[in-house]
Amino acid sequence: MFRPGPKNLITDITGLTVGHSSDESARSGVTALLCGAAWSAGVDVRGGGPGGRETDALSPENLVGRAHAVVLAGGSVFGLAAADGVTAALSAKGIGLQLRPGSPPIPIVPSAVLHDLGNGGDKNWGLTPPYRDLGIRALNTAGSEFAMGSVGAGRGAMAGLVKGGIGSASLDLGAGLIVGALVALNSVGSVLMPDGKTYWAWAFELGQEFGGGAPRERMDLSDPAPDESRLMALGRLQAGANTTLGVVACNADLSTVECKRMAMMAQDGIARAVRPAHTPFDGDTIFALASGALALGGDRQRAARIGRIGSAAADCLSRAIARAVHFSDPSRHQPPSA
Amino acid sequence: MFRPGPKNLITDITGLTVGHSSDESARSGVTALLCGAAWSAGVDVRGGGPGGRETDALSPENLVGRAHAVVLAGGSVFGLAAADGVTAALSAKGIGLQLRPGSPPIPIVPSAVLHDLGNGGDKNWGLTPPYRDLGIRALNTAGSEFAMGSVGAGRGAMAGLVKGGIGSASLDLGAGLIVGALVALNSVGSVLMPDGKTYWAWAFELGQEFGGGAPRERMDLSDPAPDESRLMALGRLQAGANTTLGVVACNADLSTVECKRMAMMAQDGIARAVRPAHTPFDGDTIFALASGALALGGDRQRAARIGRIGSAAADCLSRAIARAVHFSDPSRHQPPSA
Repeated sequence: MFRPGPKNLITDITGLTVGHSSDESARSGVTALLCGAAWSAGVDVRGGGPGGRETDALSPENLVGRAHAVVLAGGSVFGLAAADGVTAALSAKGIGLQLRPGSPPIPIVPSAVLHDLGNGGDKNWGLTPPYRDLGIRALNTAGSEFAMGSVGAGRGAMAGLVKGGIGSASLDLGAGLIVGALVALNSVGSVLMPDGKTYWAWAFELGQEFGGGAPRERMDLSDPAPDESRLMALGRLQAGANTTLGVVACNADLSTVECKRMAMMAQDGIARAVRPAHTPFDGDTIFALASGALALGGDRQRAARIGRIGSAAADCLSRAIARAVHFSDPSRHQPPSA
Repeated sequence: MFRPGPKNLITDITGLTVGHSSDESARSGVTALLCGAAWSAGVDVRGGGPGGRETDALSPENLVGRAHAVVLAGGSVFGLAAADGVTAALSAKGIGLQLRPGSPPIPIVPSAVLHDLGNGGDKNWGLTPPYRDLGIRALNTAGSEFAMGSVGAGRGAMAGLVKGGIGSASLDLGAGLIVGALVALNSVGSVLMPDGKTYWAWAFELGQEFGGGAPRERMDLSDPAPDESRLMALGRLQAGANTTLGVVACNADLSTVECKRMAMMAQDGIARAVRPAHTPFDGDTIFALASGALALGGDRQRAARIGRIGSAAADCLSRAIARAVHFSDPSRHQPPSA
């Protein structure tokens, strides 16, 4: 029996901090994840309408393969500016690749965005969208504790027909190995089974982390595009308009290609917690980060350990998805004491 | 409420036929799917140890994007010869791309293999592995009815620690639209929850197609590499040694790129029915075929319809996975009357 880490947040990975910022009039925001250093990083993009930057820098065949921070943002293409702010702020603090003395450090800040432009907030920003500043503010609030629910990049997000938002979870695999996940959930698909109350992720819940509850009845699941999703809601569906953005992390010494496998396996956490997922309208993107604090070893068991970490990342992401919805609706939960 | 097609097999797609062949002493075999013509086809490879051929021919940026048949085989790399046999036999029948008069027709036969070399069958075939002949025999038996369980490419397959095999299912989405799936299941991960009897895919069952049964108790799912999988079974794990091979099909007029999206979404069907999935040791590969009989239309609803078909393909594949195990163990089911 394994348990969550002490905070049951992705920040149980030592060195990782998370900050949110929101623009209440725009009903949008930014979530920044700051690595303790340039950590091994990978990315896997599976949605049909992705929006991102610096994802190519994480391709295993390319040079960098590391990240100093990951930024998730609302605002669709405008939200890509959040990483501009984070990049400039990190460099000003002396964080980044130092290619030659005297030139500014170059932070690698992969980023992905979700679409919340149609959520009723004031988006009449003309030439001055707020995301660059929101990125800097999110970075400046980064710490090891952070809120879940309708905050940060999830401020204006929806999951099917209910509120989405930010969720996070972690798992302590023993022997010092910790895996965690964070999600900004804005999916076409529903996190709820057709009874409207049982999370698809119900079986993966640890304790009462998203309110408990197992299916009590056999449900009709024959419709692959059920009403509780918004797949067939003509007019609301545009590529990139609906997206699950995930970050998974561990404290092991994964390489860039191993981070890629971890991100690929973590997509299964979306599949198990959201139905349908990976549609043409989702921008589903998962980043994987590895701090390197724990040596996995290079023997022939290594690939099995990578598979175990990837499976744990999928489980954590499923739980984070349910928690995002759980914490976005105050009627579903008592506010956390922390 | 939607129902399976008349046979609840992938051959509910008109024009598609399936044949098996087995070598009982080798405990291995081949499954051939024959398209009625050169159908639009796509492929999505997500396992860490894939084995295949003609997958590049289905890349959307390349020329062909169509297939005359799909071959699934046991035998690891030796099984790739099955498609040689099918290719020669189809061409001899006059089936294939006719590039110029007088030259032999060129059948496009994408193929993927699973690893059953260590299952105890006689694999001392030296320079004459049986797969080329098995491919031809499988093709010659192709029809609209076919067996499930430990047959064809699934003859020697395992799913976690229980028998894998061939499974299939279909869904009638109304208005003439049919989606189906076939799987050759040889996964690292388990199809069963930790109670050892509830299928992960339980919620997707239609009728009693894999014996019925819902979880009756809360289970400890905290271990991401549980005993009922074989992820941590050192010595048995080699890349490509464990694989879920899927084929999904529909009768709509999908393009090659739309088939790719269908195959991508269908991977979620593996995720929901097998845990863990997409590990470094799995060769998980899904082919998608579209007969083109039904016009989906080109309006702005088209992408939503593709998403619905992809979601149905994922559901059918989850069901096919449970059925593969169900029909591989006679104690789990009454032999089908048909």
